[in-house]
Amino acid sequence: MDDAQGKELLDTAHEMADAAGTAILPFFRSPMLAEDNKLAGGYDPVTEADRAAEQAMRAVLARRRPQDAILGEEFGAKDGTSGLTWVLDPIDGTRGFVSGTPTWGVLIGLSDADGVRMGMIDQPYTQERFWGGFGAAQMRGPFGARALGTRQTARLSDAILFTTFPEVGTPDERAAFQAVAGKVKLVRYGMDCYAYALIAAGQIDLVIESGLHSYDVQGPIGVIQGAGGIVTNWQGGPAHMGGQVIAASNAVLHAQALDILAPMAKS
Amino acid sequence: MDDAQGKELLDTAHEMADAAGTAILPFFRSPMLAEDNKLAGGYDPVTEADRAAEQAMRAVLARRRPQDAILGEEFGAKDGTSGLTWVLDPIDGTRGFVSGTPTWGVLIGLSDADGVRMGMIDQPYTQERFWGGFGAAQMRGPFGARALGTRQTARLSDAILFTTFPEVGTPDERAAFQAVAGKVKLVRYGMDCYAYALIAAGQIDLVIESGLHSYDVQGPIGVIQGAGGIVTNWQGGPAHMGGQVIAASNAVLHAQALDILAPMAKS
Repeated sequence: MDDAQGKELLDTAHEMADAAGTAILPFFRSPMLAEDNKLAGGYDPVTEADRAAEQAMRAVLARRRPQDAILGEEFGAKDGTSGLTWVLDPIDGTRGFVSGTPTWGVLIGLSDADGVRMGMIDQPYTQERFWGGFGAAQMRGPFGARALGTRQTARLSDAILFTTFPEVGTPDERAAFQAVAGKVKLVRYGMDCYAYALIAAGQIDLVIESGLHSYDVQGPIGVIQGAGGIVTNWQGGPAHMGGQVIAASNAVLHAQALDILAPMAKS
Repeated sequence: MDDAQGKELLDTAHEMADAAGTAILPFFRSPMLAEDNKLAGGYDPVTEADRAAEQAMRAVLARRRPQDAILGEEFGAKDGTSGLTWVLDPIDGTRGFVSGTPTWGVLIGLSDADGVRMGMIDQPYTQERFWGGFGAAQMRGPFGARALGTRQTARLSDAILFTTFPEVGTPDERAAFQAVAGKVKLVRYGMDCYAYALIAAGQIDLVIESGLHSYDVQGPIGVIQGAGGIVTNWQGGPAHMGGQVIAASNAVLHAQALDILAPMAKS
């Protein structure tokens, strides 16, 4: 893939994220969302926002990249001919969205047969966007743009670990998570996809989760890989299909966490 | 207190929050903060930011309101002659601050002998500010200003509950928290003071915490009271001294949660 194609794909992702944000923001913290998540007649504002955003992203792809495949949370799979697949989660973190926290995000991943090539995490309300791939690893936010780069924390005892829930998956998965959590400096909860962006931004070191879908994780994988980090499953294999996922700021720390997680991961 | 004095006090709080944000932002997500929280020589960027922000707020008060008392997290108490006390937490949520999450805040409370008269929660990075008191209950953020108002959720089974940690205080306190958590629709974690702002904004219904200081809670009390909500201790008494605190979107829901909490609260 040459530089011009990489730039075209990144430009496409930015246009998709812009379109998704425009579609979602009217629903975020709207009175109808605050009142009830399932109104009479089955109208569900979160689902409406989710669908509107995925449709907006698919419209960009239909115009700019009709040759690419799509896998989206809301509208499923569309075949392509280019070997590239866009993997879309229009609102990752719907519980955060419903609660009004700016920790949800629009996730865009782009993969080929070799894995994830590019990823983007966008938070339309705070106007922060993180992306990585094709030589780029950058963020922009309310105070401008800067390069992304992960931390070089070398010991678990110095690491900051995040997860979305206090209860991770099954009792066995929770025990595995707690085994790592007991060795780190600080554990924080409830950040949704924003935690992956914080790894890429060099703020934290680890995210450990389970029960993920491919569309939950491919956007974050692209951003974190671009910034120098590593994302695998709990056994050290590919994570782009989701499941039990560990993201780390660097390979040294990743190996230390895997030493604990892998024996406790499902085979 | 007349309208002109209320306006002067609100204007003072805004100037204090502006000054605190200016003092803190150079430290937030700075490389030195990302690298280490306690650098060689004992230099601690979080403490530096905390102190710089409280000094900036005290400088505003020294110029505009020298007659008022001050109680600050970092520099303690200063007497006054007006009967008014400013209660300051320059960075509430230092664990979130260290981790790069925009969930920490500058807390400003103003109290007299009758309790909290005004409160402000400011998030300088997302540029969101919430305040209540002297007839005002407003927020402003990246998409403009709007009035604050709490939800009228009438049943615990429809309520959204937040707390900062998964482990609230002592085992007894945790059991009390879990007793309420088991009855609500959704529980979320890790939001620091931002959760109180979300009650005032009509997004969530309950925050239950323990081990708070007066400077942790007086800013939030002012914002939530101004927006129509209620904040007490777990026995229904005043919460402005901290300790075990419950904040609720309305009195009906507050009573239902207290029915569970009060028998389990420390006497």
